[in-house]
Amino acid sequence: MSIEEELKERADRVSETIEAFLPDEEGQLRTITEAMRYACLSGGKRIRPILMGETCLLFGEIPKILPYFGSAIEFIHAASLVHDDLPCMDDDDLRRGMPTTHKKFGENFGVLAGDALLNYAYEVAATAVENEAVEAIAATNDASFNATDARMDALRAAKAMGILTRNAGVYGMIGGQCADVEGEGKKLSEKELVFIHENKTTAMIESAMMIGAVLGGADDDSIKLIGQAAKELGMAFQIRDDILDVTGDEETIGKPVGSDEKNHKYTYVTLKGVEECRKEVTERTQRAITIIDSLGGSDSFLRRMMLWLVDREM
Amino acid sequence: MSIEEELKERADRVSETIEAFLPDEEGQLRTITEAMRYACLSGGKRIRPILMGETCLLFGEIPKILPYFGSAIEFIHAASLVHDDLPCMDDDDLRRGMPTTHKKFGENFGVLAGDALLNYAYEVAATAVENEAVEAIAATNDASFNATDARMDALRAAKAMGILTRNAGVYGMIGGQCADVEGEGKKLSEKELVFIHENKTTAMIESAMMIGAVLGGADDDSIKLIGQAAKELGMAFQIRDDILDVTGDEETIGKPVGSDEKNHKYTYVTLKGVEECRKEVTERTQRAITIIDSLGGSDSFLRRMMLWLVDREM
Repeated sequence: MSIEEELKERADRVSETIEAFLPDEEGQLRTITEAMRYACLSGGKRIRPILMGETCLLFGEIPKILPYFGSAIEFIHAASLVHDDLPCMDDDDLRRGMPTTHKKFGENFGVLAGDALLNYAYEVAATAVENEAVEAIAATNDASFNATDARMDALRAAKAMGILTRNAGVYGMIGGQCADVEGEGKKLSEKELVFIHENKTTAMIESAMMIGAVLGGADDDSIKLIGQAAKELGMAFQIRDDILDVTGDEETIGKPVGSDEKNHKYTYVTLKGVEECRKEVTERTQRAITIIDSLGGSDSFLRRMMLWLVDREM
Repeated sequence: MSIEEELKERADRVSETIEAFLPDEEGQLRTITEAMRYACLSGGKRIRPILMGETCLLFGEIPKILPYFGSAIEFIHAASLVHDDLPCMDDDDLRRGMPTTHKKFGENFGVLAGDALLNYAYEVAATAVENEAVEAIAATNDASFNATDARMDALRAAKAMGILTRNAGVYGMIGGQCADVEGEGKKLSEKELVFIHENKTTAMIESAMMIGAVLGGADDDSIKLIGQAAKELGMAFQIRDDILDVTGDEETIGKPVGSDEKNHKYTYVTLKGVEECRKEVTERTQRAITIIDSLGGSDSFLRRMMLWLVDREM
């Protein structure tokens, strides 16, 4: 099977999980639940949940709460796309060839669907945290359970929640988006551009991989290393995106080429040129892969996926 | 001291706590952090955090993590107000006599400030959950600590997180807001109107009081009773709001009287008339107070505050 086919298979499994978590209501919640489902179930590569699961597998088995966190991170991602597309933000009518959420459901439901999805992410993750905390107490009170394991599971769930919330927020994804909006049309320094990329894109890659490591039972040093690898990967991924916006094939990537220039976006390519950018992608990827290898991942799907992410044509 | 003075004193303490939690950044996060602070620190009665603290005191002492949850619920409330004021929602230029957040910082930062505050609420609450989980493990591994207490604290924090997330979401506040938006300009049945009020307003009152009970160490039956009292209080509070919109004094309540009619909002007063509404407020308040008395709160500040909330002229 090609890497694309293997990723597609995994993405389909993620989509099924996500669909099962999403609310499905009639009555007075009909429009909002339809909008939430529309925003989450109209395609997408599911990169973050897959990275989470594959990073987890470097350290241990997939615990039963991983699907909660995998779905949660995808809900946060979807929420950010819905709000990014709004008229007062990027004002996009199409995403993946289909009307954006606010185009289909109205601008008010664009705002509300983003809010509902962001909140729902934490509802789903909090359910996992609560379940583990209840089980830890139950196991402590019942000698037939392994209480130490149950208590460690509860701690890991709480730690994962902390990472999930922080990396999405003002010191992560949302902060990066704010800096990006503020920088539009301005000439940015490399430091400013790195700040935007490290937060807007990379923080969520970091979140995915660090949560995977935590839930897989990695020790603190390994979690830190995974965080470093994720940062390199995230930056390489974003720079690759900037390159594709200049050199990519419109048909293949499914969105208009040159959109950054059109939107007066100052990118890594504007700053350093395509060749320098390609070099940086290679170097950052190499550093990320070296870390994964040092953690015993030289034969892992995670490693192959990382290489694909920074070399993709779409 | 009058009840108003006592409430003001508590509100000031809440405001100080909230201010200490809020990010205070320069550089590329300057606008967003300013917008977050502006949205949270421009007045407000702090009803939800105060209800949380006072409900907690019915059952036990204020635990060290209560300020985290008190601030978090106020961040969620502030986020909802910022998004409600947006041009595609209620399109309000003023709140508490000052420019709304999007008027002051631009529409894009209106969307982003709401997102950042909603997310920040969960960052703050997750920090409390994570701290308690770490302490529970530490106490379990160290005989000089009371491990049972530490583990119960961790469970309570996780439960509080669950309540906080659920009551704000699509099956709570955000869902109520969605139903409200969808119902605008339509003739609603009593059932539909109750659904909107129970979610849009009441869910967060319920959240505040139930989290207070959980963190105070209430047993499951008492938590359930507090939830019922909060539902009655929340509905009475909202119906009182609808009455004030018709009968209130513009100077005292600080917003234009008759705004519901102007916005083609179908309210409890439209449905039942002022007299019937007053009767329902009294009945619901009575049921809420009966519960609080049954839980030993007949001399509590909570009881006095509840009575004030449904009898206020502002």
